[in-house]
Amino acid sequence: MIIIGEKINGAVPKTRAAIEARDAEYIKELVRMQEAAGVSYLDVCASTDPSEEYETLCWLIDTVQEVNTIPICIDSPDPNMLVKVFPKVKMPGLINSISLEGNKCDVILPLLRDNPEWKVVALASSDNGVPYTADEKVANCFALIEKCAEYGISEDRVFNDLLIFDASTRGDTLTAFAEATRRVKEKYPNTIVTGALSNVSFTLPVKKALNQAFLVLAMQAGMDSFIGDTTNRDLKATMLAADIMLEKDNHCRKYTTAFRKGEIGPVKKD
Amino acid sequence: MIIIGEKINGAVPKTRAAIEARDAEYIKELVRMQEAAGVSYLDVCASTDPSEEYETLCWLIDTVQEVNTIPICIDSPDPNMLVKVFPKVKMPGLINSISLEGNKCDVILPLLRDNPEWKVVALASSDNGVPYTADEKVANCFALIEKCAEYGISEDRVFNDLLIFDASTRGDTLTAFAEATRRVKEKYPNTIVTGALSNVSFTLPVKKALNQAFLVLAMQAGMDSFIGDTTNRDLKATMLAADIMLEKDNHCRKYTTAFRKGEIGPVKKD
Repeated sequence: MIIIGEKINGAVPKTRAAIEARDAEYIKELVRMQEAAGVSYLDVCASTDPSEEYETLCWLIDTVQEVNTIPICIDSPDPNMLVKVFPKVKMPGLINSISLEGNKCDVILPLLRDNPEWKVVALASSDNGVPYTADEKVANCFALIEKCAEYGISEDRVFNDLLIFDASTRGDTLTAFAEATRRVKEKYPNTIVTGALSNVSFTLPVKKALNQAFLVLAMQAGMDSFIGDTTNRDLKATMLAADIMLEKDNHCRKYTTAFRKGEIGPVKKD
Repeated sequence: MIIIGEKINGAVPKTRAAIEARDAEYIKELVRMQEAAGVSYLDVCASTDPSEEYETLCWLIDTVQEVNTIPICIDSPDPNMLVKVFPKVKMPGLINSISLEGNKCDVILPLLRDNPEWKVVALASSDNGVPYTADEKVANCFALIEKCAEYGISEDRVFNDLLIFDASTRGDTLTAFAEATRRVKEKYPNTIVTGALSNVSFTLPVKKALNQAFLVLAMQAGMDSFIGDTTNRDLKATMLAADIMLEKDNHCRKYTTAFRKGEIGPVKKD
């Protein structure tokens, strides 16, 4: 599983406070925590007023780059902002995101074409709105992968976010996501399917049980990646347990190693 | 989900100690706890030396029957013992178990034929050993359901235990169980598929993550029941979360109700 760590985002109240106070140490600690928890990319999103976004993203990227050893996933709703901050990022990473909305593809895909080590998150939404059904998700996803191919961007460079909705308003969120995942992976076995896991429990109590159940079932359908929080030890244990059930962890080696290293299970006291 | 509560079993160290001390209050508390946790049947198993089994089972059954409002699942490896203690049980329940081993069917099925309110656990093992593959599980299960039919026992009275093995030695335990479950439910949609959930994590650390991942995937395959411990709040939350994902809990009503009643989520302090 390729995990995109979600904690460096101004939409998270504690992170927002740290951004407003320009508390670099707090941001660096989020980098270290997420790296220790096995994250592959560090999402960096300002979630500020557009007037402050560039300056905020630059500060965040500079701060992260004082300590990170894994790549950044630069994240903005504004494609021009992504192009603008792109030169600040030293290590090739992820751009979050393109979609079929507006001119996003035309603005961002040339950057990907010219920087072959970079990858992109492709959100399966369009100007017609967000896709609730498997058919809509798949149609948008295929269109995005084809659009990328036109720019010479191969399917394995595309993280397809097939959109996880909250189970409280969309009772079929797992069903639609899992079916779309199967169809996408069948046609494009080397592309990557991802989604923002914690969306599923939005407004509901006991979020961890919902996030975990969704994760296990989506992994079975072929989801390769998620945007989430593996500093949550229970979520990490669930992910590794699902790997065992799906026969992706021979002799439970990854699982027992993670336990011995203290990465899952009760926190050991010194 | 039909849950068979596993706690009143001499193989559980604390229960064994209570049995040895004839601590009736402890056993009654196990009844109350499991009933409060939504269990449908109370498994009662002595797990003693055969010379003490009858007396122990009688004491356990009498003790449980001072407080229970849900049926007992009488549990012994010895079919003659099950027949012997059967008359002690007041409320129609479950007999655990028949299998294709030895004369178990011939000893127990006449009792089921003559007591139409009783149901039976049919363990999918035979004199050829335990079934690791889906093919073996399905063949044994079908043979048992047909054997029951010969005695006029309909498929909906049969709890088919398709055998959950420990993932540490059988990496394909979920794969084989899930495939067998799908095939059994396809041929006999009204029969019940069950299994002893905690077996999957035998000898492994962080058992709850493994039990939960197995449960979610087995529920998706069609498992209707399990033998386990829903006084474990995390397991109960996982079961209810899986129901949401599998579209078996409209508008998340069961989930949010369980939360409001304090049955899942952090324990509320008075």
